[in-house]
Amino acid sequence: MIVGILGGGQLARMLALAGYPLGIRCRCYDPSPEAPAGQVSPLTAARFDDLPALRRFARDVDVLTYDWENVPVDSVRAVGKLARACPNPDALARSQDRLREKSLFRALKIPTPEFHAVESERDLAAALGRIGAPGILKTRRLGYDGKGQARIASRRMAGAAWRELGGSPLIYEQFIRFTREVSLIGMRSKTGEIAFYPLAENVHVAGMLSYTRAPYSHSALQRAAERYVGRLLRELSYVGVLAVELFECQDHLLANEIAPRVHNSGHWSIEGAVTSQFESHLRAVAGLPLGETRTLGHSAMLNLIGELPEPRELLAVPDAHLHVYGKAPRPGRKVGHVTLRAGSPEELWARLSELPAFFRREEFCLPALAPSPLSN
Amino acid sequence: MIVGILGGGQLARMLALAGYPLGIRCRCYDPSPEAPAGQVSPLTAARFDDLPALRRFARDVDVLTYDWENVPVDSVRAVGKLARACPNPDALARSQDRLREKSLFRALKIPTPEFHAVESERDLAAALGRIGAPGILKTRRLGYDGKGQARIASRRMAGAAWRELGGSPLIYEQFIRFTREVSLIGMRSKTGEIAFYPLAENVHVAGMLSYTRAPYSHSALQRAAERYVGRLLRELSYVGVLAVELFECQDHLLANEIAPRVHNSGHWSIEGAVTSQFESHLRAVAGLPLGETRTLGHSAMLNLIGELPEPRELLAVPDAHLHVYGKAPRPGRKVGHVTLRAGSPEELWARLSELPAFFRREEFCLPALAPSPLSN
Repeated sequence: MIVGILGGGQLARMLALAGYPLGIRCRCYDPSPEAPAGQVSPLTAARFDDLPALRRFARDVDVLTYDWENVPVDSVRAVGKLARACPNPDALARSQDRLREKSLFRALKIPTPEFHAVESERDLAAALGRIGAPGILKTRRLGYDGKGQARIASRRMAGAAWRELGGSPLIYEQFIRFTREVSLIGMRSKTGEIAFYPLAENVHVAGMLSYTRAPYSHSALQRAAERYVGRLLRELSYVGVLAVELFECQDHLLANEIAPRVHNSGHWSIEGAVTSQFESHLRAVAGLPLGETRTLGHSAMLNLIGELPEPRELLAVPDAHLHVYGKAPRPGRKVGHVTLRAGSPEELWARLSELPAFFRREEFCLPALAPSPLSN
Repeated sequence: MIVGILGGGQLARMLALAGYPLGIRCRCYDPSPEAPAGQVSPLTAARFDDLPALRRFARDVDVLTYDWENVPVDSVRAVGKLARACPNPDALARSQDRLREKSLFRALKIPTPEFHAVESERDLAAALGRIGAPGILKTRRLGYDGKGQARIASRRMAGAAWRELGGSPLIYEQFIRFTREVSLIGMRSKTGEIAFYPLAENVHVAGMLSYTRAPYSHSALQRAAERYVGRLLRELSYVGVLAVELFECQDHLLANEIAPRVHNSGHWSIEGAVTSQFESHLRAVAGLPLGETRTLGHSAMLNLIGELPEPRELLAVPDAHLHVYGKAPRPGRKVGHVTLRAGSPEELWARLSELPAFFRREEFCLPALAPSPLSN
């Protein structure tokens, strides 16, 4: 079984490493010859719109999947007769456009913040009239890690936000004062079997995931999240792992966005669950039975952003697990992550505060101690 | 950090896969261009006595280590100025010769079966006179998986055994009626830090490891084994993982043999311990702190010999983990392994007996139910 991955970043790298023990060999396709998955699997370096190259790649694999949700859907469709894509191109297309994504939530009765399509300054005025301020103006496509967004605290700021982002199709979303950000990772097999990991709690700083704790144990919210993600998986005839980010607000959940792939907020599952999200995704797309998603203790995953620390200090911490991505250091770039595992939330908390200076984060205490008005 | 592995079999493959997350890149050297580690890491295909090729390989790595204990020691010594070898060539040399190995046990007061060097038919008669029958005549070098051995049940069989093996330097060893076979995997860092996994219980069939259960919890035997393996690690100024196979006989242990490398009886540690033996070995040879060796539940590791089963049935078993080695099927060849993990020995036992037919083994029950007089 050969899995072709469109995109060769750290997600593709961890998929490839998870595949070898199962006898699943991954090949990656990425515009950059330096893509980090190329260090652990064969890499085709070509643009996503280079259809001859993409056809050659697709001909040699059994199934196509994604490391990146913004792979052009037309390219995936163009090679659809050569290799089945999992998840299917329609699921990919809906996740690429915030307006289609939010409309899907609404159609499936999945609570989501209020939103309004914005194509003109007049649309923005109408959106503000209906939803009010504060809110967030976002590009419908290609936003990630907080990029392509402008917060509108009051109506007076609408003009500036429009000048910043106008020109692309936009969406205006209600600003949510949430208690915490959580995510649910679900999966569906080719035979329609569905499974979920427990909710994880995520802390973003400057729009970028800083750390994740799992499991976030809240049985009512877990049930609600599984209902929502189950609807998405079935509606999209989805095969593979699907990540959904949600806001917790006063004991209910609002869906924020989906990622049609393995997700940064699921990296903890490598050590923290019986089957990692990477193995789960490969099992699903390869037509194998899904694995157990049960947790092993309590985990915290910390992104390493910008540069890698000296590993010596970290590796002296009990049950700390380092994952480097083989990327050159660069400000704001995710270059690795660390997962810390412990027997209880209390032990995990104690261990987090004992981490060497490089790994300690002010934000560790934020959601636990002070439900804080962070922005989506 | 680049680690050069002499030998490119499944052990090298699993070392390479364990290295990537740590930022440790492995390169392998093997006479066969088909060596399975070549699928996951760069492979130099050349003979171990091709010193120019070995020198080029050694120049490009930071440290050398082994997938195979029978790498020619002279070759390792010849490139010693280009890359430090861990463990050192002297430790390698002692493990290659059963007589030197057993003499080392004796010098360190590590109990071992009685033995006698045999270079001639007269030596064999003397050995039989001193040790008696039954016993086992073995080649001093290059035996593995039960090869290069002849059992001598009574003195009358000495002539036939001599005709089979005579010509190589031999050793005659006392036959031990053991309760069970166990192994201890220990490790030593560059700074002299020492750690051990718990004892594992091993069942061999026709001279080949069939399955391993861990932990084998017996505090008195664990203490004794750690004393013995600790003496070996210190005496040999060892750096890396060392495996020692022992016989349990009436509440004491007799050392059988050592392997200066990661070991088949330690594969369970990938899922069954906080740090796998592969990561432990890499941490040690790379000069990093040793990891935690604490177990996660109870594990059974089953070798897949000859051919791989259809993975579908196996992957439907909860907490079953498949590891394929990327080798062509061949009778008697280890082509993969499976680790099953459970919360208790009883649950593990129940799960073993529920395995699909391909994986079920008659020998599962042997050591637990009937301490049996198997041979070394």
